[in-house]
Amino acid sequence: MRLRNLKNKEEIINGSSYVVRNIKDYKGHMDRLFGNDNPIYVEIGMGRGKFIYNNAISNTNINYIGIEKQDNILARALKWIPEGVLNLKVIRGNALEIDEYFDKDIDKLFLNFSDPWPKKRQAGRRLTSPIFLDKYEKIFKDKKEIEIRTDNEELFIYSIEMLSAHKYTLYDVTFDLHKDSDDLITTEYEDKFSENGNKIYSLKAIK
Amino acid sequence: MRLRNLKNKEEIINGSSYVVRNIKDYKGHMDRLFGNDNPIYVEIGMGRGKFIYNNAISNTNINYIGIEKQDNILARALKWIPEGVLNLKVIRGNALEIDEYFDKDIDKLFLNFSDPWPKKRQAGRRLTSPIFLDKYEKIFKDKKEIEIRTDNEELFIYSIEMLSAHKYTLYDVTFDLHKDSDDLITTEYEDKFSENGNKIYSLKAIK
Repeated sequence: MRLRNLKNKEEIINGSSYVVRNIKDYKGHMDRLFGNDNPIYVEIGMGRGKFIYNNAISNTNINYIGIEKQDNILARALKWIPEGVLNLKVIRGNALEIDEYFDKDIDKLFLNFSDPWPKKRQAGRRLTSPIFLDKYEKIFKDKKEIEIRTDNEELFIYSIEMLSAHKYTLYDVTFDLHKDSDDLITTEYEDKFSENGNKIYSLKAIK
Repeated sequence: MRLRNLKNKEEIINGSSYVVRNIKDYKGHMDRLFGNDNPIYVEIGMGRGKFIYNNAISNTNINYIGIEKQDNILARALKWIPEGVLNLKVIRGNALEIDEYFDKDIDKLFLNFSDPWPKKRQAGRRLTSPIFLDKYEKIFKDKKEIEIRTDNEELFIYSIEMLSAHKYTLYDVTFDLHKDSDDLITTEYEDKFSENGNKIYSLKAIK
């Protein structure tokens, strides 16, 4: 997603109460971050935050953490998200370090419209590559649960294969999510893409 | 699969001790057919029988039933399969009638290289269409288990979608079965197809 550069992005990020600056202090103890031991759901690549924000306000008994590596995008999210949602936190960080942030902390992981990294030699950067799936092993509590949405069929099929090879079972697999469901919490990218008549691929994986 | 017509096919089929002529008499009581209550695994479209025969002799504590609607193919299978495999039976019949043969009888269903019926208006004939999945509901004991192999990517993706929509969970999903596994019991068609360097798609579904 290409966005105009936000001049005051540093200011927005530094001023936000959503941003957790010392996430590693809470590693293994996310209950201390939220002040309760509700389930922890994490979205890698939260983008402009519509999906995670709407989930957070709809499910107040679940704690949500968004991760975003691009300051420009993160700042745009923080600019519009209203203050005061107690079950929402944000990490300015990189998925590659996710096992430095969490240790048996999380219950569910959302990967929405991740970069497909279409070239074969870049496959390791896909968020469902064995490199990442191995990292995720360490961050889940007991049951592992991953939900994926993408508009990229190759990434989707790759993800099905990798998750299967890592002994996940798959359910609610669809190659056209919006065909049957109209009551979904969506991402901004998804809305735009789907409005143009394109297909959204979606699955849930558990282990 | 196009095969030369076998002149004596009626004779072969009528003479075979594998062919169950009155399967409906055993509906709901497959233990009487085999004289034991071992699990029942069924292959729809057994073709020339390599897969089911090799499974039967490898797993003698499981009962196998092959269904084949084409007499010419069935006769070819019966011609080469050695006599005396006690845990193997064959039905000369049509998958459309499968719920007339079985009633909460079976433990696992194999769909190997089924006809892809590529045209949309024929989709109902695919063995993973809702029409068939509804029939399968009635024939499984408790746990439902379906294993699929195909060389047709469209049928494979269609099957993933339909099984998911019918609340199956999927595992061991691969878009290139022979890449990682060399210790498989295969079908004749699969051997030929795979030797030519083509990909075999495979999955397991449970509910």
